[in-house]
Amino acid sequence: MLPRMLTLAALRDAYGAGATPLDVVEQVIVRRAALADPAVFITPTPDAALRDAARQLMDEGPLGRPLYGIPFAVKDNIDVAGLPTTAACPDFAYHPAADAAVVARLRAAGALVIGKTNLDQFATGLNGTRSPHGAPRSVFDPADISGGSSSGSAVAVAAGLCAFALGTDTAGSGRVPAMFNNLVGIKPTPGLVPNTGVVPACRSLDVVTVFAGTVAEGAEIRRILEGVDPGDPFSRPARPVPLPRAPRIGVLDGPEREFFGDPGTEALYDAALARAAALGATLVPFDYAPFREAAALLYDGPWVAERLAAVEGFLDAHPDAFDPTVRAIIAGARGRTAVEAFRGLYRLEELRRAVAPVWEAVDLLLLPTAPRSYRVAEMLADPVRLNSHLGRYTNFVNLMGLAAIALPAGFAPSGRPAGVTLIGPGFSDEALVPFAAALHAAAGSGIGADRTAPLPPPPDPGPVPEGWAGLVVVGAHLSGMPLNHELVAAGGVCLRATRTAPDYRLYALPGTAPPKPGLIRAPGFAGPGIEVELWALPLAAFGAFVARIPAPLGIGRVALCDGSAASGFLCESHALDGATEITAFGGWRAYCADG
Amino acid sequence: MLPRMLTLAALRDAYGAGATPLDVVEQVIVRRAALADPAVFITPTPDAALRDAARQLMDEGPLGRPLYGIPFAVKDNIDVAGLPTTAACPDFAYHPAADAAVVARLRAAGALVIGKTNLDQFATGLNGTRSPHGAPRSVFDPADISGGSSSGSAVAVAAGLCAFALGTDTAGSGRVPAMFNNLVGIKPTPGLVPNTGVVPACRSLDVVTVFAGTVAEGAEIRRILEGVDPGDPFSRPARPVPLPRAPRIGVLDGPEREFFGDPGTEALYDAALARAAALGATLVPFDYAPFREAAALLYDGPWVAERLAAVEGFLDAHPDAFDPTVRAIIAGARGRTAVEAFRGLYRLEELRRAVAPVWEAVDLLLLPTAPRSYRVAEMLADPVRLNSHLGRYTNFVNLMGLAAIALPAGFAPSGRPAGVTLIGPGFSDEALVPFAAALHAAAGSGIGADRTAPLPPPPDPGPVPEGWAGLVVVGAHLSGMPLNHELVAAGGVCLRATRTAPDYRLYALPGTAPPKPGLIRAPGFAGPGIEVELWALPLAAFGAFVARIPAPLGIGRVALCDGSAASGFLCESHALDGATEITAFGGWRAYCADG
Repeated sequence: MLPRMLTLAALRDAYGAGATPLDVVEQVIVRRAALADPAVFITPTPDAALRDAARQLMDEGPLGRPLYGIPFAVKDNIDVAGLPTTAACPDFAYHPAADAAVVARLRAAGALVIGKTNLDQFATGLNGTRSPHGAPRSVFDPADISGGSSSGSAVAVAAGLCAFALGTDTAGSGRVPAMFNNLVGIKPTPGLVPNTGVVPACRSLDVVTVFAGTVAEGAEIRRILEGVDPGDPFSRPARPVPLPRAPRIGVLDGPEREFFGDPGTEALYDAALARAAALGATLVPFDYAPFREAAALLYDGPWVAERLAAVEGFLDAHPDAFDPTVRAIIAGARGRTAVEAFRGLYRLEELRRAVAPVWEAVDLLLLPTAPRSYRVAEMLADPVRLNSHLGRYTNFVNLMGLAAIALPAGFAPSGRPAGVTLIGPGFSDEALVPFAAALHAAAGSGIGADRTAPLPPPPDPGPVPEGWAGLVVVGAHLSGMPLNHELVAAGGVCLRATRTAPDYRLYALPGTAPPKPGLIRAPGFAGPGIEVELWALPLAAFGAFVARIPAPLGIGRVALCDGSAASGFLCESHALDGATEITAFGGWRAYCADG
Repeated sequence: MLPRMLTLAALRDAYGAGATPLDVVEQVIVRRAALADPAVFITPTPDAALRDAARQLMDEGPLGRPLYGIPFAVKDNIDVAGLPTTAACPDFAYHPAADAAVVARLRAAGALVIGKTNLDQFATGLNGTRSPHGAPRSVFDPADISGGSSSGSAVAVAAGLCAFALGTDTAGSGRVPAMFNNLVGIKPTPGLVPNTGVVPACRSLDVVTVFAGTVAEGAEIRRILEGVDPGDPFSRPARPVPLPRAPRIGVLDGPEREFFGDPGTEALYDAALARAAALGATLVPFDYAPFREAAALLYDGPWVAERLAAVEGFLDAHPDAFDPTVRAIIAGARGRTAVEAFRGLYRLEELRRAVAPVWEAVDLLLLPTAPRSYRVAEMLADPVRLNSHLGRYTNFVNLMGLAAIALPAGFAPSGRPAGVTLIGPGFSDEALVPFAAALHAAAGSGIGADRTAPLPPPPDPGPVPEGWAGLVVVGAHLSGMPLNHELVAAGGVCLRATRTAPDYRLYALPGTAPPKPGLIRAPGFAGPGIEVELWALPLAAFGAFVARIPAPLGIGRVALCDGSAASGFLCESHALDGATEITAFGGWRAYCADG
C-alpha cells in the first residue's frame, strides 16, 4: 500500500485515499521490526504507545494539523517526553518532563514520534561509530559507516521507516549522514530553530536539522520548527534574505579540491557542478583555504571547551561512562584557558573578515558534503583522523553562522552515494530552497534506499519568490528603456512580458524627464490592455525603489490580462491635466517607436 | 580672540574671520603650557611639530578638509605616527609606523593632533588614578578624580585645549570622564568605528569614543571615524536604526536607584528625567537588575581574560612594569578556563534574552552616567571597590552591543558636575543624536570648564535613516486605528504626527473594510492639510507592506505641511465614484470620531 519511501507526499496520498494514522503506524511497526540494522534506535517508541498516539490523533482529527499522522524519528539528544534522553551514554540517561521545543511543535502539528535514534555519543563525531549501541550502517552497504553524529535518524528515513527525522548539527552531523544515505539534510541558520530541550554539544553553535527525502519536504518541516523559544537564549527571529534565481556559486578550486583518494566522489562533485551550471548558475572558483582554517578551529580551537562545559560534572563523576574516543576529545578541553577561548574568537572573526570578498563574488557555495566515505572497520581503526576528513567541508558552516542544505549527488560506480551542500548566508534558508530542489531533481538519484524513486518536480518558485516583490512596469523601466538599469542594479529579474487587464488607459505625461507614461484604471473601459513587464525585486530593493519614485507616480495594484494582479506603476489623477491619451498604441514602447 | 571652549563652531567662526591654523596652534601651545594639571598629557605633540603640521595644512588648503585646522587630543592607547604609544606603561612603549585608522581619518580631514593623553594603564579603570604619570583631575576641583580610563582626553577638551578628543571605552571609559568634566561622550555601537591601531583592552568589546562640547559636534566627528577597516575584523558596516522623536525612555526604579550616598547626583538624575519628559519622552520605570548582572560579568566574568590575552607576553616578561592594581586585575585572569569563558558567553546571551522585554517597552534607556564621583585620595585608598561603583551604569553597554551618548546634567550644590547617558539599540548612533542634543541643551550647564558657555539649539532631526523608508499614513494605519498593528509588526517606528500640504482632499471610500479614506492631491486647492503620521519602516518590511496594499490604494509621494515629502498612501481616482469628501474634518481620525 505505502511506497518504499514514506515521503510526506506519499503519506498524504495515502491519507487522501482513506488510510488512517493507525494504518500508517502499523506499517511503521512492521518495517521497524524488519529492519536489518539493529543499531538505528536507542529507544523505539513502544508499539502500543505508537498505536495509542495514532488513535488519539484520529480522535482529534486532521484539522489544523499540517503533519497529521506523519511519522518521524528523533535523535536521542533531543527530549521527547515519555522516552529517556541518553545522548548514547546510558549512564547519562534522564527522563525529560517535557518535549524539546522542536518536538512539541511537530507533535502539535500532528506528527508521531516513532523512536529515539542512535548517535555518536554526545553528538561528538561525524561517522556514527562512537556509540555503545553499535554503528548504524549506510543503507547502501552494511560495511559502510552511516555518517554521524545523527546516524540513526538518517538511516531511519533512508530505510523508509518515517517521513523525516530530526538530527542536530554542530560540525556537520545533520549533513554528512544525509550524503551517506542519499537524503536531503536541512541545516538551518544557527538560532533559527530553538535548542530548548536539546543536550548541548557546542551550545553556541548547535543547530537542529531535518533529514527528508526532498528539499521541499525538509523545508516544510523546517518552517514548523522555526521561531524564537524563550528557553533558548541563542534562538533568534528569522530575517530572511533573498537569493537571485540564477545564482553565482562558489566552487572548489586547485589544491583545495581534496577527496582523500576517492575519485568517485570527486567525479560526482564535478557532475553536480555541471548540473548547477545547466540550471543557470554561474560557477565561480574560490579559495577555500580560509574556510578550511575556520573549520579546523572547531576541534583544534577552544570550541571543544563547549563540549566540556556541557558535561563537565558528569565527566568528573563518570569518566568510564564515555566512549573512549569521545572522552579523549572532551577531556582534552580541560587544559584550555579563557585566553585561548578569546583568541579563538578573535581568529574566527579574522577569518570571517578574510572570506568577506568571497561572499561579494558569490551568492552561494556548492561544496562536497563530505570528501568521501569509509568502512566501519576503517573508521574504528583510525577514529580521529578519518573523522576529521569527513568534516573538511562542513565544520566551518555553523562557526560562520551560515545556512546549508545537503542533497544527494548520485552514486559512484562502487555503489556509494555522494552528496553536495549548498551553503548560503545566514537566514537564506528559504531562499536556498528553489535552487536546491532543482539541483536535487536534476540528480535523478532517487530517495534514500530507493535509487529509482521519482522525485517531484522542483517546487514552482511561483510568479514571485518569497522574499521578493513583483513589479509591473509600463514605461521608462521596460527592458531597453532609459530607467531599466535601475531594476537591474537592484537585483531585479524580468519574469515575463504581458499586458494589463482591458480597463486601463495610458497617457503620455507632460513635463517628465525622461518621458514617462501614466497608467490609469477606468472600470468598464474595454481597451486593448497595455503592454507591461512583470519583474521581481528583492523586497528591500523593492522598498528602496518605491521610496525613490517621484510624484505624480506611485505603486499600487495593477490587474493583468490573465486575471492576476501585482504591484505596479500608477499615476495620480491630477497629473493627467494636459496629458495625451495614448491607449490606442497598446503600450509605451509602441508610442515611443512611433514618435 | 578664541573663546575659552574650543568648539568646532568657535574654531570655524575664527577661521571664517581670517584666523589660520597656525594662529590656532599658537593659542593651543599657550594654553597647553599654562595648564595647571601636569598629568593630562603623556606625550604632547612638540611645539615645533605642531606648528609644522599647521603650516603644512595651510599649504594644502581647506578644500575637502571638513576638520581643517581643528585641534584634537588622542588617548595614549591609540597610535599616532611620530609619537610613542605607551598605554600609560612606559616599559610597554612602542613607536607606531602608522596612525590608527581613526587618527588617519581625522588627519585626512584636516585635524591636528595636539598630543597623547594620560589614561588608566592599559585602559583598565574608570577613575583616572591608575597611571605612573599621575592622576588628571576634574576641571572643577583638583581634589576630584577626572574619571577614566580616558582621563587626559576628557580634561584636555574640558580645559579648552582642543575641540575634541579620542578616548576608548570598554567598561565606560569614554563616558564616565565626560560626566566628571561636563562634556559629551559619544560611545558608538561596538564595531561601528574600527580599532585598527588601538592597544586592546577587551578586543571583542573596545570602542573608540569622542569627547566633545556638544552632541552635534561629537556626532560629526563620529561620522568621520565610522566605516569598516580591513585591519579590524570586528569592525562592521553601519545598519542604522531609527528612533521615534518622542521616545519611550527606560528609567531607574526602586532599589536599583543606587547613588552610593550621593544625593546631589540623584537629584540631578531626577532633574534630567524631568527635562526628558518635558521634551516629550514617556518615562518607563524598568528593572535594572539583569543589566546590572551583565555589567558585573565584565570584571567578575571571563572577559578579563581578554585583557590578559592582550598583554600576556609583556606581563610575563615585565610584571613590575604594571600599576599594582592593574596588574592584579589582569593577572587575575590567569586561572580562568575556556569552559568559564563559554559559560560567561552563555550567561550574557541569557541576560540579553532576559532584557528583551525591556527593549520592547522602551526605545532608549536614560541612566546616570556614573552614580557619583570621588576624591583622588578616596580612590587611591580603595581602588577596586570604588572603581566598580563608577561602572555600575556603564559596564553592560558594550557587552550588549548598544550605542550610547553621555551628556552633562548640571551641577550639584557641591559644585560637582553630574551626567546622564542615553543608551539605544545597536546602530541607533545617529538616531540618538536629536534627543540627546535637546536634552543637553535643556540642561543649560555650559560646556566643559565654562559653566556659562551657551549651547547651540539642537540639530533638526534628519530624515528617515539609511536602510529605512518613510511612510505617510492617513487612515486605518494611524496609531490606534485597526490596521496600525501591521506597521508595528513590520518593525515600524512612528516618527511624528503632522499634516499634509494644503492641496490635498480626503474622501471616505465606499465599500472598504475596515473603512478607509482616499487621499487625492488637488493642485491649487487651499485646504486645512490632512492629519497624517510619518512612520519609518525597514526597507524590506516597507517593500513587503507595499506589495500587500490592495487596490484602489497605492503608495506615492505625499507632500507635507513643512515642505518635505515622503512615501505615502494615495488612491486611484476611479475609486472616488460614490465617495464622500471629508476634507473639512481635517483627517480620518476626526471623521471617525464624528461618526
